[in-house]
Amino acid sequence: MIENRIYNFSAGPAVLPEDVLVRVRDNLVNYKGCGLGVAEMSHRGKEFTQIIEGAEASLKRLLSLSDDYAIIFTTGGATNQFSMVPMNLMAGKTADYINTGSWSKKAIAEAKKFGEVRVAASSQEESFSYIPTDVDVSSDAAYLHFTSNNTIFGTQFSSEPDAGSVALVCDASSDFLHKPLDVSKYGLIYAGAQKNLGPAGVTIAIIRKDLLDRIPENLPIMLDYRTYVENNSLYNTPPTFPIYVVREVLSWLEAQGGLAEIEKRNRRKAGMLYDAIDASDFYRGTARKDSRSVMNVTFRLTDEALEPSFLEKAAAAGFSGLKGHRSVGGVRASIYNAFPEQGISELIKFMREFESSHG
Amino acid sequence: MIENRIYNFSAGPAVLPEDVLVRVRDNLVNYKGCGLGVAEMSHRGKEFTQIIEGAEASLKRLLSLSDDYAIIFTTGGATNQFSMVPMNLMAGKTADYINTGSWSKKAIAEAKKFGEVRVAASSQEESFSYIPTDVDVSSDAAYLHFTSNNTIFGTQFSSEPDAGSVALVCDASSDFLHKPLDVSKYGLIYAGAQKNLGPAGVTIAIIRKDLLDRIPENLPIMLDYRTYVENNSLYNTPPTFPIYVVREVLSWLEAQGGLAEIEKRNRRKAGMLYDAIDASDFYRGTARKDSRSVMNVTFRLTDEALEPSFLEKAAAAGFSGLKGHRSVGGVRASIYNAFPEQGISELIKFMREFESSHG
Repeated sequence: MIENRIYNFSAGPAVLPEDVLVRVRDNLVNYKGCGLGVAEMSHRGKEFTQIIEGAEASLKRLLSLSDDYAIIFTTGGATNQFSMVPMNLMAGKTADYINTGSWSKKAIAEAKKFGEVRVAASSQEESFSYIPTDVDVSSDAAYLHFTSNNTIFGTQFSSEPDAGSVALVCDASSDFLHKPLDVSKYGLIYAGAQKNLGPAGVTIAIIRKDLLDRIPENLPIMLDYRTYVENNSLYNTPPTFPIYVVREVLSWLEAQGGLAEIEKRNRRKAGMLYDAIDASDFYRGTARKDSRSVMNVTFRLTDEALEPSFLEKAAAAGFSGLKGHRSVGGVRASIYNAFPEQGISELIKFMREFESSHG
Repeated sequence: MIENRIYNFSAGPAVLPEDVLVRVRDNLVNYKGCGLGVAEMSHRGKEFTQIIEGAEASLKRLLSLSDDYAIIFTTGGATNQFSMVPMNLMAGKTADYINTGSWSKKAIAEAKKFGEVRVAASSQEESFSYIPTDVDVSSDAAYLHFTSNNTIFGTQFSSEPDAGSVALVCDASSDFLHKPLDVSKYGLIYAGAQKNLGPAGVTIAIIRKDLLDRIPENLPIMLDYRTYVENNSLYNTPPTFPIYVVREVLSWLEAQGGLAEIEKRNRRKAGMLYDAIDASDFYRGTARKDSRSVMNVTFRLTDEALEPSFLEKAAAAGFSGLKGHRSVGGVRASIYNAFPEQGISELIKFMREFESSHG
């Protein structure tokens, strides 16, 4: 760990790998000796062309992606995808959504602006504490949309819902690339970069090319997937610096051993923390055990009145960003790919000490 | 000039002030000693709140902006604004556009998707080599849209077109903050950051608040100006790092003496280069003299066959990005706010030497 850095449990924008940060810093004023900083270069020049093509190639390798899919770099975060998905893919049909929390609800509310929405499954009646497995997909739905990981409620799909022949669409913003992924199950998968991929300001989407045929004419040009696919995401100036950092994060992932290795680490990290929570009556997890997220570990202190003190002391001890989302309270440890295992051990040590001092 | 950096004449993404680059580099791993890098911090934490509020306050000071206006930070570049402007502001009426080149044409084509467009003035018949002054604004137009500076043709409005009582809307992407600006003349002014403001990935818009009343319901949420105004551009995760760099560029502008001082420098820089072009029959400017841009100096070699050699030798001598836009060819020196005056002197010296060696 670089001196004077603290443990960053932020839900996003989130911690980046230190190797990546150092490389980015070294190229900010003069990119690989070309005489220009990496944020100052034309998006049509050979250096940036190598960056964006490198990012794409790296992502293809990590996912063993077939040529049936196109990778695009866009902006506006997942929220912009909440509009783009129905605008591009509804094609006059009803769209099915699985409702597993705040982000799903926002996606559903947005889709209703553009057509009819059916809720194919929901865990709302149990305060979104679990992932529903009984999904009632309509065979003539335009697509089935789900949120693979729910940052606020700390739940996560352990495998994809079965969409049958219906196109599966996924908001993977908070767990994309945390484990190997069989993209062939998906019609579209999208993710804002600021959790597992890089800094805020770029959104990656992978779309099965046959879905492009459904897109109606006269969409706002930057909300039409074809604008990106047909121009390799260079119809206009893309967010070059965020894409550069994504490229470095993808290289880092490959250097770590790829998605199988990162999954091992993620399971080990989350397992350590959930074990510590379960080992004590002082803490309790908020998500049902079969639905727990490997990325966002949400928990309460059994005596909730102690939470403000817990959070304050944790912050003072160098654990940043542990406060639960303002809509639910409690504690949340976001431990994405780049979060170091040592930070988990240190947090567990702190939790035990806090418990002892209040025992 | 920092060692080993070269002169960056790129039309955008473009050169950033070296003071800013160094400060950004120093905060990339650990922002002001808080233990987190500037691209890794929550957009709802106190550090980023200070950054975005600081950027807004700085921009307000630079422009003496009244409270009738709201500043927003969005994404998707000017191209996304080409959609947002008509979707938000047409309100069932016809919109007037001034056509001064490629970007105006794209704005017009996009607006036609959403309603009726009238061309109130155009310089297309003279290959966009000048800025039309005879503008026929319809008194019942929803707004009058113009492109204040045309990067490709090297032309620029020296003052705003008279829109009468019609809301004036401006794409100022390539000359925003290059001189003092009376925002009270405008209904809406927008600019992608990557020329005068910072890195690619954030777009700034300033909107007169009364125009928000026109906005229809059920727009895609990230294309509705109200989403930004009502949430201080924090409805979802904004592009935090690009906004941080913008904040630093605005501070730099203030430290230089503000817009009056930067205008002096810009006029001096452009004046030196145009004088050099006019002093020789070897070079010729492409824009009509009364319409010349202070930001993008476009010129040809009288013997166009020499241009490839000129560009190649210039690049070898450390002048990057001088090639004219692919749609028009020739030479283009983009000399935005952050471009150093010394680079102009050096380029002129190079131009004279090239001329001598081909005399």
